[in-house]
Amino acid sequence: GAKYVVLTSKHHEGYSLYPSKYNWNWNSQDVGPNRDLVGELAAAVRSNSSLTFGLYHSLFEFFNPFWIEDRDTNFTTRNYPDKRPMPMLKELVEKYKPDYIYSDGDGINGTTSSYWNSTKFLAWLFNDSPVKDTVVDNDRWGEDCRCIHGSTKTCHDRYNPGYALPYKWENAMTFDRRSWGYRRNADLSMYLSIEEVLKSLVTTVSCGGNMLINFGPSKEGTIPTIMEERMRQMGTWLGINGEGIYASSTWKHQNDTLTEDIWYTMKGEDVYAFTLSWPYENQLTLGAVASTSTTTITMLGYNGDNLQFRETTDGLVISMPWMSRVTSKWVWTLKMTNVKVA
Amino acid sequence: GAKYVVLTSKHHEGYSLYPSKYNWNWNSQDVGPNRDLVGELAAAVRSNSSLTFGLYHSLFEFFNPFWIEDRDTNFTTRNYPDKRPMPMLKELVEKYKPDYIYSDGDGINGTTSSYWNSTKFLAWLFNDSPVKDTVVDNDRWGEDCRCIHGSTKTCHDRYNPGYALPYKWENAMTFDRRSWGYRRNADLSMYLSIEEVLKSLVTTVSCGGNMLINFGPSKEGTIPTIMEERMRQMGTWLGINGEGIYASSTWKHQNDTLTEDIWYTMKGEDVYAFTLSWPYENQLTLGAVASTSTTTITMLGYNGDNLQFRETTDGLVISMPWMSRVTSKWVWTLKMTNVKVA
Amino acid sequence: GAKYVVLTSKHHEGYSLYPSKYNWNWNSQDVGPNRDLVGELAAAVRSNSSLTFGLYHSLFEFFNPFWIEDRDTNFTTRNYPDKRPMPMLKELVEKYKPDYIYSDGDGINGTTSSYWNSTKFLAWLFNDSPVKDTVVDNDRWGEDCRCIHGSTKTCHDRYNPGYALPYKWENAMTFDRRSWGYRRNADLSMYLSIEEVLKSLVTTVSCGGNMLINFGPSKEGTIPTIMEERMRQMGTWLGINGEGIYASSTWKHQNDTLTEDIWYTMKGEDVYAFTLSWPYENQLTLGAVASTSTTTITMLGYNGDNLQFRETTDGLVISMPWMSRVTSKWVWTLKMTNVKVA
Amino acid sequence: GAKYVVLTSKHHEGYSLYPSKYNWNWNSQDVGPNRDLVGELAAAVRSNSSLTFGLYHSLFEFFNPFWIEDRDTNFTTRNYPDKRPMPMLKELVEKYKPDYIYSDGDGINGTTSSYWNSTKFLAWLFNDSPVKDTVVDNDRWGEDCRCIHGSTKTCHDRYNPGYALPYKWENAMTFDRRSWGYRRNADLSMYLSIEEVLKSLVTTVSCGGNMLINFGPSKEGTIPTIMEERMRQMGTWLGINGEGIYASSTWKHQNDTLTEDIWYTMKGEDVYAFTLSWPYENQLTLGAVASTSTTTITMLGYNGDNLQFRETTDGLVISMPWMSRVTSKWVWTLKMTNVKVA
Repeated sequence: GAKYVVLTSKHHEGYSLYPSKYNWNWNSQDVGPNRDLVGELAAAVRSNSSLTFGLYHSLFEFFNPFWIEDRDTNFTTRNYPDKRPMPMLKELVEKYKPDYIYSDGDGINGTTSSYWNSTKFLAWLFNDSPVKDTVVDNDRWGEDCRCIHGSTKTCHDRYNPGYALPYKWENAMTFDRRSWGYRRNADLSMYLSIEEVLKSLVTTVSCGGNMLINFGPSKEGTIPTIMEERMRQMGTWLGINGEGIYASSTWKHQNDTLTEDIWYTMKGEDVYAFTLSWPYENQLTLGAVASTSTTTITMLGYNGDNLQFRETTDGLVISMPWMSRVTSKWVWTLKMTNVKVA
Repeated sequence: GAKYVVLTSKHHEGYSLYPSKYNWNWNSQDVGPNRDLVGELAAAVRSNSSLTFGLYHSLFEFFNPFWIEDRDTNFTTRNYPDKRPMPMLKELVEKYKPDYIYSDGDGINGTTSSYWNSTKFLAWLFNDSPVKDTVVDNDRWGEDCRCIHGSTKTCHDRYNPGYALPYKWENAMTFDRRSWGYRRNADLSMYLSIEEVLKSLVTTVSCGGNMLINFGPSKEGTIPTIMEERMRQMGTWLGINGEGIYASSTWKHQNDTLTEDIWYTMKGEDVYAFTLSWPYENQLTLGAVASTSTTTITMLGYNGDNLQFRETTDGLVISMPWMSRVTSKWVWTLKMTNVKVA
Repeated sequence: GAKYVVLTSKHHEGYSLYPSKYNWNWNSQDVGPNRDLVGELAAAVRSNSSLTFGLYHSLFEFFNPFWIEDRDTNFTTRNYPDKRPMPMLKELVEKYKPDYIYSDGDGINGTTSSYWNSTKFLAWLFNDSPVKDTVVDNDRWGEDCRCIHGSTKTCHDRYNPGYALPYKWENAMTFDRRSWGYRRNADLSMYLSIEEVLKSLVTTVSCGGNMLINFGPSKEGTIPTIMEERMRQMGTWLGINGEGIYASSTWKHQNDTLTEDIWYTMKGEDVYAFTLSWPYENQLTLGAVASTSTTTITMLGYNGDNLQFRETTDGLVISMPWMSRVTSKWVWTLKMTNVKVA
Repeated sequence: GAKYVVLTSKHHEGYSLYPSKYNWNWNSQDVGPNRDLVGELAAAVRSNSSLTFGLYHSLFEFFNPFWIEDRDTNFTTRNYPDKRPMPMLKELVEKYKPDYIYSDGDGINGTTSSYWNSTKFLAWLFNDSPVKDTVVDNDRWGEDCRCIHGSTKTCHDRYNPGYALPYKWENAMTFDRRSWGYRRNADLSMYLSIEEVLKSLVTTVSCGGNMLINFGPSKEGTIPTIMEERMRQMGTWLGINGEGIYASSTWKHQNDTLTEDIWYTMKGEDVYAFTLSWPYENQLTLGAVASTSTTTITMLGYNGDNLQFRETTDGLVISMPWMSRVTSKWVWTLKMTNVKVA
């Protein structure tokens, strides 16, 4: 399953899910559920799981009067940043000690890190804050920072380049094809199928990224059942195939040179090939991989028997097992030892 | 997909989904949505589909004062039936002309058809009502009627005997394992998986029954997405395998004599075998079927090629195709021509 | 203060303030406060006061489907009366045993007692009901009954003829100049002043009527403060002047023949003159009253001293006391012994 | 009627009746009626009346996190004043240009003007603000200011010392005996009678004060009818007796030396005596007033005739007119010319 969780502590409308003295009467403690949702989740995550705890925070707020004031002066004034997002971020870190800060709402109307004064906050975060030794951040600290600075790069929403990047990056996406919040009127066609979700996961990891999947709770505070199903399907899949995902790194090739929809990762000496579809003739041909004398090939979620393979002029041809004996229902993983780049 | 739809016109709490003069101010026109939901659905079904339109109606009402009065006299009085359910049923038929009347709430506290005076209503329904030539009913007209009288038998909820019955019957069940209404707090584990739904369908039809699947809408009036998914999965499955379901009849055997989880139907000269699981060795052995010289066997949702088979001392052994080439994801259907009972 | 109280058990919209089996789910027990308001008031009145307990009941109901049905046939059908108001009235009497039944909603669209079948109910009420020996009714039992039949006549709303009637009658009116229910948007000008209320009371009683003052509670269930003030002002006034009101009868004259705004009542040998205004010259001249040798005149709420008077060609001239020593603030009462008609 | 109106722009709970950028999402524009109530009232008062427009503002806020922070450090920190009340006061003046600033919530927990830094605001208010030439303030700027500084002194709520003060002061009180807000459950006994209200008015003005009467609107935004009645009664009384109230000053004596419940004001050469009760013998004796040869005495609201008077050893005895010819219903005013102190 998941390795880290990120809660939206405050989104663009400015309402925070925790009591902030800078946001009195516009937060979940004072108005609405009357609960410190950030604090409750932090405690639950830390005592019941080994998940890493992260917090999303939006710098800008659609309707904040000080933001509007600055925008109306074309940012020749800086009334907003020091009154609002900067003290709130500091308060958030001091209260909840997150391991990951996912900043957002940074480049609106072309605002840069010098408008936000992000560097001052980040200097404090990494040098003096209570989480200075453990915290990571993302790259959304100003228009000039995206895809350039930060412990991990998120670039833009649903970022998934399809090729390896020389730094850590993250694909932040949603189960809902369009929305980041729960929509009561969304029907089944608005949600990604499990095949689509797994394709995103495999392509992201093969290219060196993490996948951050967002969903919004219903107004009853429940996880909508269709999202629970997608998460359980992912959990089932990762239970079988996670060996090729977790702590993996990029291989020489990200996807195969010959056959479509095959993506690679590497861990130690082993190479993993994820195939999004099952080959019609039950034979899979890899153009990017060459076998050696000590090569073995197995399938995750199969019985452990070595699969037969042979070298051909087309490439390495692998005989798939009987599909009916394989436990993974979607996207199958071949684990290959002692192979080399073809 | 579905062939008929049945709306709950009034359930045990007595609130009706249509304006009734016998139920003033306790119906969907006067209180709540201010709409005639029965009338709107009837019109929509008739103009946009070829579905048969049925109506559910509960005879008894938990809290109706006249019902309570009769119950308190141990039914030596009959104040309730002629004041309430009988005139309401007649009004319902005259207003909405249903093709199917699904009666319920009949045998509570041992009440029989003589208490309800159901026969008077049914005499009118089948002799004089505007739907006398087309309507069908079920069997819930009194404790003395269940599983005995009625165009179709429903016996009890989730009725699914596992053997063929000599009359038409119906398995009325729900996607939710427990509830007939939508529950906001039901998580994924409370819903039947598609495999469980299809098992119910196949076993019901093999034994000569119809399946009536119930679900409750959310308070927003939407179909909960997880239920939409189950219905679309059923629709997909029926698009491939419906040939063995619709207008089928029972065969000599309902399930196989040798191999578990294989169920039969018949249509014309053809016999259909539904297998709930894929055989491990890709060979399916049927104990109840014997081939003849003109037998052919195909799989619905496969490419049309005849499957190989051979007679053995165990039974008829059929070679399954490669699973990866088959379009049906769950429960596979073998269509067999010119076979006989083994 | 007041001598009897009449609660609206059901008004024209058909919602009843008590649980009725003929009005299931459209009453105060099932919908709204979930209380039997009629029952609670009856118990409170009977255990905490010597007030007579009466109940208002509307025969017709604006939107009742059976009423509309009868109206649409121009009352050639009679589906409504025996299904609804007649059983409800009987139920009301049996449950709450009122001392006074204030019927209403009777003559709508010209409906008569033969449509309503009122005589059947009244025969039961006065011959066989549990209150047959004590109950009184009013006259609103059909267009043919108003001002003709009934223990007391109410004729039309705010009925106050200004002359004596040869039977018992009642002036049913409201503190609000227009409405019978509480109006949140009514300002002070919409309420009768205490002077106007007392004028209604004095003129009604002088002509042989009772006054029934209506007011509606606020949605919080409180008595609006301005109405509490009017009732307390009436109570204060009656504490001083009630002797001339309670158990009084009409005198030969109802109002004076010479001076305006003077109204008479009689009790035993004593005649009471109510003056709505204080005479400018502190001398009050009565044209209708002649003194005798044993006549004495006092003012209620004054110190008991006899007032001086003298006969003149104009009439009997009475010297008023110093106004500043009189306790009644509005409408003053002269009590005259041994006087005769002039 | 009234000469000035003061609206509560923000009370102790911190919710403001106008949109403030320092109070985003906790004001009447963002939450609740979605209206700028201060702005609408200011415009209405200025275009439809000659009333002076004032604004109440509470410095402290019960639950403001910065206030609580300062309080917890025993006010060794000053995080709250410059973040909140001081910028809000300035914003209020700049937006609405009030003629009167009624400060409150100042001395809580012993806080002084140096904590609040009130002097800085007041220096700006009277030297540089847009209302510097017209505005007046009160005295609630810190525990050290009450009854000492300010254009007018309010000292404590319902302040009414009963003797003349050498400076302008104000008696701020309410129609409700206890509450400053409207209470749905307050019955008639909770409101001051008109006699009590007028006694407050007359004693306040005789001692050199203004009276500021507070009332809270209902949740429908209406003036509760009982309060409308009290205000109309005051208006009627002032229409008759206002000559002795408006623009009056204190006389040598505030109340009479001999007879209770008589209070004096002075305007030019004339002295006004207000008597709260009407004398039993219709003769009023004043111990503090001596007549001269040119003295005349009249009663406001009487026909203008001079009242008879004579000097006695007890004092000046004045013959009251017939009460029934006097228009004032409560508290009567004698206007005396050319009198001197006895």
